[in-house]
Amino acid sequence: MRYVVGVDIGGTNLVVGAMPADGSRELGVHTLPTRALLGGEAVVQRICEMIEETIARVIKETGATRADIAGVGIGSPGPLDRANGIVIITPNLGWRDFPLRDMVSERVKLPATLDNDANCATLGEWWLGAAKGARNVVGFTLGTGIGGGLILDGRLYHGASDVAGELGHTTIEANGRRCGCGNYGCLEAYASGPAIAMRAREALEGGDPSLLPGLVDGDLSKLTAAMVYKAAAQGDQIASDVVKDTARFLGIGVANVLNVFNPDVVVLAGGVAQAGDSLFVPLRAEVRRRAFKPAVDACRIVPGALGGSAGMVGAVAAFLAEHPVA
Amino acid sequence: MRYVVGVDIGGTNLVVGAMPADGSRELGVHTLPTRALLGGEAVVQRICEMIEETIARVIKETGATRADIAGVGIGSPGPLDRANGIVIITPNLGWRDFPLRDMVSERVKLPATLDNDANCATLGEWWLGAAKGARNVVGFTLGTGIGGGLILDGRLYHGASDVAGELGHTTIEANGRRCGCGNYGCLEAYASGPAIAMRAREALEGGDPSLLPGLVDGDLSKLTAAMVYKAAAQGDQIASDVVKDTARFLGIGVANVLNVFNPDVVVLAGGVAQAGDSLFVPLRAEVRRRAFKPAVDACRIVPGALGGSAGMVGAVAAFLAEHPVA
Repeated sequence: MRYVVGVDIGGTNLVVGAMPADGSRELGVHTLPTRALLGGEAVVQRICEMIEETIARVIKETGATRADIAGVGIGSPGPLDRANGIVIITPNLGWRDFPLRDMVSERVKLPATLDNDANCATLGEWWLGAAKGARNVVGFTLGTGIGGGLILDGRLYHGASDVAGELGHTTIEANGRRCGCGNYGCLEAYASGPAIAMRAREALEGGDPSLLPGLVDGDLSKLTAAMVYKAAAQGDQIASDVVKDTARFLGIGVANVLNVFNPDVVVLAGGVAQAGDSLFVPLRAEVRRRAFKPAVDACRIVPGALGGSAGMVGAVAAFLAEHPVA
Repeated sequence: MRYVVGVDIGGTNLVVGAMPADGSRELGVHTLPTRALLGGEAVVQRICEMIEETIARVIKETGATRADIAGVGIGSPGPLDRANGIVIITPNLGWRDFPLRDMVSERVKLPATLDNDANCATLGEWWLGAAKGARNVVGFTLGTGIGGGLILDGRLYHGASDVAGELGHTTIEANGRRCGCGNYGCLEAYASGPAIAMRAREALEGGDPSLLPGLVDGDLSKLTAAMVYKAAAQGDQIASDVVKDTARFLGIGVANVLNVFNPDVVVLAGGVAQAGDSLFVPLRAEVRRRAFKPAVDACRIVPGALGGSAGMVGAVAAFLAEHPVA
């Protein structure tokens, strides 16, 4: 059996682990803060140390040798130049024209591949998670931003220049809120983690009683989407309204995807998976109101099943797609 | 050389013609009104007569025999069940669970295929028109409704149940205008032909001088999108404003498509192709404002090149994709 290391690079955390080529288990998975502010060189150094740590654990746990490690799949925020393994620009990490793939490959002396983080998360959920066995899958990754990945007719779709799947940056409100990308009315401007927290802060301005201020000792700048979901689960009215609006905005985004892609499965990955029925029930209702019935009937709308491992698992799958190994 | 007949079924007109399998020329192309009100049986009868007329012309013009006619490709509004050749429902034609493909095939005694009309138009523009040679193409068909077709990684994409590509029915305004599909804020509710005419009527309510009322002898219910484009070309201020708004709405729809599909080419087919720079210049500017630069840089946004033949040509191409012939 041969093994592949998967690297998931996030703005906050790095997740590194390994899997045998048959995907039967996760090995040596560990997480460290990205510390992007220390600069690209330092982040690459940290990634390579984590890869070596994972390899050491694989060898120890399985009796494999270093020759059994086939390579490294890397998932990174983009946009990317996949063919050349270059990160073109990542606002969260501060990289620009950064030759990430070859820097990692040369240091760990293993072949490496690079793909978009949201593509990897979708690929992971398709290989081993909530979208297993489907032919057409649309994945939303909901976090600091909203990304997307597309499995169409059984293959990851990248588009003409590797930018496809930016589902968070589609306009759902022509004259809507300003988005970090410069556009107005993007889905991300309404339903990303920070956007949910911002809408909660706005709702609190009315002065109605809520559990939320107590969760952050009155410092509303510390409010997170996770806290909003938590307060809503405890029956907090303001938080519940914010979750209901979130379901509506995400429902618009998902309905658009149903009418355009007619997928078998839509996977919503990221922290949102923990929101449960309070989000998914009104979200599915909004989709039914907006999308064509044959598209609704054909599609399951589900939370991701792999949690924080999805990106790492998908990075392994992306490596295997380019370098099939025994 | 063998020949394939293409049938393009529209709410207003039927277009039937034939092409040799190499696509080198159009033969026996003619158009008749659909007369959907006469019922499905009568429309099928008319289509079959048109097919026979086209075959007679092919035989006369080329010296081919009936055995050289390989079959019939049919493009129809949907949603469809392609595998079974059934039109599930078409509001404009009044069909429901209508076994169109086999009805035609049995009467003309030739194999037949059925695909969505907007898919066919996009396929036609890809095979022989404005998107020739591209790998990823998104086609908008702009008319009474707004349809779409998707060529992804060099193949027509249909989705899980043949409903993919309904680009007109994506929400661009969360609380927007009511659309014929039942949803609110669809692109179609702003930029279809009737929607353009409606916005022009609304703009005229202000009482400003305009050429438009004169074009319809004061009966504004007769206003069409074509008249709006015509008046704008003549410098009419109200019409120009309506065209500018149309460019903005279509620009939002196209920008969404760029961020999601990252295509090489976006083709806008239908009467809109005649609108020229007055539409396309502001439309491209709106797309640049909204979409990611790598997606904008990768993509040409062009009017269709095949005019009213696109659907017929694409129906031939769709037949050939299922029945490769010499």
